[in-house]
Amino acid sequence: MSHPAAALDDVVHQRFRLGILAILAGGDRVEFSYLREALALSAGNLSRHLTTLVQAQLILVEKGYQGSRPRTWVSITKAGRRAYRNEMTVLRSLLALQDAVPGQDLDEDLPPG
Amino acid sequence: MSHPAAALDDVVHQRFRLGILAILAGGDRVEFSYLREALALSAGNLSRHLTTLVQAQLILVEKGYQGSRPRTWVSITKAGRRAYRNEMTVLRSLLALQDAVPGQDLDEDLPPG
Repeated sequence: MSHPAAALDDVVHQRFRLGILAILAGGDRVEFSYLREALALSAGNLSRHLTTLVQAQLILVEKGYQGSRPRTWVSITKAGRRAYRNEMTVLRSLLALQDAVPGQDLDEDLPPG
Repeated sequence: MSHPAAALDDVVHQRFRLGILAILAGGDRVEFSYLREALALSAGNLSRHLTTLVQAQLILVEKGYQGSRPRTWVSITKAGRRAYRNEMTVLRSLLALQDAVPGQDLDEDLPPG
């Protein structure tokens, strides 16, 4: 039997894409600039991650205007929601495995924070 | 405030390295071949991930013999344990955020499995 980590999907698991999906899983469409700020990403890096997620059909990107200003909105697809939920399920099982290991934290001090 | 996902460390978060650390966090040294099998990795891929973790001082790799057969053992360092625990803490906060989003799963059927 393979470890739960082997069941993770790189497209979803990569930390910035995971962050994007986590934000979008709330349900509303979100502005490009909001994602940039929330994830402290450059526009180029964010664009690259969005392209990966669009290609996997996990998100939608829409371009339009708010008044006279161009805007890019991002939203999650049904498949994206499913992929995100699967990731959360695997993460839960990883955490459960950790909780099941007895005494692993007893031999040293906890780090600050 | 940036999203918790931005606080994840790529060295630890990458799914196979996360799996390696999760296995090693149990505390015992583990054989190379055990990790290969548990994570369904080729020897080359596993070696690459181990090198990344050694360079970050998160694991130790020891070579030796069991009887006449050469063996490679891998164990986690104190820094590795700390990094793994930090990752688990961030994952917990990601999962807590998900739990805090109301009604995000009510509009569609659950996927099988």
